[in-house]
Amino acid sequence: MGIQTPTLVLNQRQAKQNIQRMADKAKQSGVRFRPHFKTHQSAEIGQWFRDVGVESITVSSLDMALYFANHGWQDITVAFPANPLEIDKINELAGCTQLNLLVESEDIVWFLEKNLERNLNVWIKVDTGYGRTGIPWDAERLIAVANAVDQTKQLQLKGLLTHAGHSYGYRTKDQVKALYQDYLFKFKSANQRLVDIGFDQLELSLGDTPSCSIMDDFSDVDEIRPGNFVFYDLMQLNIGSCNEDEIALVVACPVVAKHEERSEVIVYGGAVHLSKDFVIDQQGVKSYGGVSLPQPDGTWGPILSNCFVSSLSQEHGIVRLDKATFETIRLGDLLMIIPAHSCLTVNLLKKYVAPEHQEIHVAKI
Amino acid sequence: MGIQTPTLVLNQRQAKQNIQRMADKAKQSGVRFRPHFKTHQSAEIGQWFRDVGVESITVSSLDMALYFANHGWQDITVAFPANPLEIDKINELAGCTQLNLLVESEDIVWFLEKNLERNLNVWIKVDTGYGRTGIPWDAERLIAVANAVDQTKQLQLKGLLTHAGHSYGYRTKDQVKALYQDYLFKFKSANQRLVDIGFDQLELSLGDTPSCSIMDDFSDVDEIRPGNFVFYDLMQLNIGSCNEDEIALVVACPVVAKHEERSEVIVYGGAVHLSKDFVIDQQGVKSYGGVSLPQPDGTWGPILSNCFVSSLSQEHGIVRLDKATFETIRLGDLLMIIPAHSCLTVNLLKKYVAPEHQEIHVAKI
Repeated sequence: MGIQTPTLVLNQRQAKQNIQRMADKAKQSGVRFRPHFKTHQSAEIGQWFRDVGVESITVSSLDMALYFANHGWQDITVAFPANPLEIDKINELAGCTQLNLLVESEDIVWFLEKNLERNLNVWIKVDTGYGRTGIPWDAERLIAVANAVDQTKQLQLKGLLTHAGHSYGYRTKDQVKALYQDYLFKFKSANQRLVDIGFDQLELSLGDTPSCSIMDDFSDVDEIRPGNFVFYDLMQLNIGSCNEDEIALVVACPVVAKHEERSEVIVYGGAVHLSKDFVIDQQGVKSYGGVSLPQPDGTWGPILSNCFVSSLSQEHGIVRLDKATFETIRLGDLLMIIPAHSCLTVNLLKKYVAPEHQEIHVAKI
Repeated sequence: MGIQTPTLVLNQRQAKQNIQRMADKAKQSGVRFRPHFKTHQSAEIGQWFRDVGVESITVSSLDMALYFANHGWQDITVAFPANPLEIDKINELAGCTQLNLLVESEDIVWFLEKNLERNLNVWIKVDTGYGRTGIPWDAERLIAVANAVDQTKQLQLKGLLTHAGHSYGYRTKDQVKALYQDYLFKFKSANQRLVDIGFDQLELSLGDTPSCSIMDDFSDVDEIRPGNFVFYDLMQLNIGSCNEDEIALVVACPVVAKHEERSEVIVYGGAVHLSKDFVIDQQGVKSYGGVSLPQPDGTWGPILSNCFVSSLSQEHGIVRLDKATFETIRLGDLLMIIPAHSCLTVNLLKKYVAPEHQEIHVAKI
């Protein structure tokens, strides 16, 4: 049976190539590759990483950690501030896998020391300029938190971890390269302050997909944690993290109405399928997704210029097309929409279909 | 066990009052109340509508129609353009419920006539100014589509249906009242053109929550289809559709980090919980959610002024607090976040918890 509703179509060959390429890069730099699994959330796709030698992973929630621990992963970093309300899950996980948690305050260090039933590793989250969370790289409390961990019996300080999410705001490779040097300097400075007081064995972990895609040499750090690169998306294409051929998934959306006077079609494919994330391209156009056409083999063609998803409501997508493309489209055709942000789209659709209609399921969490 | 992760907390008493109030309004105007169930997506909450006499419902997909048909609903409008690729589901539904579909082109009328296995009702979708989909109210093809339906054997033309979604862009009750008069005029004009050629038994159906909440007299039409009003949200509060006490749900989010220098906390509660929808308030501030504090009985207090969700990533929410509130918050506390758009938040979280921790599940579709 063919596609009837908005469906995630995955180019498995390309996703595996993206994995291989990043694994090779990490190997060449001599760093640990600890991919972020929040992007795909699938035990089956996780296996593709095992196939290239990956043993350590990153997730964004304890529930996701439990899912992957149940699928045999033995070394998991939860790249989210430790949540005191989930202490039971933390203890459960620490009993069945090598768990790495993030800390960024003395309060959470003392809470864990008091409530943990066994030892675990912690990393201090450092803010190298993104401004979301973590201890600012030059703040005094970095030392206080390191010293607090050092005084505990249950916590082992493994290293410093940063996420330079501000790289998503840039639009050229050169900008990302310059940003990388800037945040690497801050990250190493934070580490040096700890080295100076005797913490000289700490590892450094970074992970944004733009830096990991655009840079080649990571020998200044010990670990990279990119996630989005497995599929990429319109946002990463706009940044310069990937080329068009490296985007490994689209959402196939049925055309349900045509509006010739505005050269727009309505697709079945809305905010509950694509998410409300968007990109603003270099011409200032806001796009909730790129547009391509299905190919006879079930894959998709090149991204059409001057065509984009201009608006989304719950189930409706409005797609702007150029006149020539508009004329060729009929009701019941599929448009292959390149999502603005593949992580959120996967989280909504929960199931992948390969062009040959083989299904891959996502964690039900 | 208490709340550990982002959790939808529902004030059932208030939701039932919202339902009762809208049902009373419809009754006073002598119009059919056909609530949109895409907001709550729950058979159990659907029962609360049955309890006030509702027999007809609206949904936004055929899968949702199947779910509610399986829960005994016998009169269902799918308020989305009929999708040719789902003809098998349409035939299945038409066999087990009184199905109403939307058409807006001759092509879809002929497709249905050719492929339907039994009769069903259709409504012509009319665009009264929103600009998403539907036949523009003054376009010639309105008559062509009505005539096409009239020539079929399988389709019964029941009426005209509009959704004035542009009401979501307004910020005062007076603006919404003026808009209502404007789109009602266009809607009635469209109908008059069909009356003039002999279609004099058509019903009129409208449905946006702002109009249905702010207006009292619907005697110009035959049916109202609001959905969001069952819970309301920050967007509807900003428009003036509801007052604060009428908002019936929040997302309880654990505080996992504090940043005193910027008077911000990080909550476990991101784009995969709240959605990336946002409101821009009258001061021009972009907010992904309002902030209130939990009360001892498990409900929530008033919305705190100068406090809001300023940014979201996949699992992180950044919450701006005033200094006084910031000082009172500790790691592991819950903040009760009023979602910008409750429909998308419910679709993501899939499960409601009443303050007394009773669970209500959402359709797995």
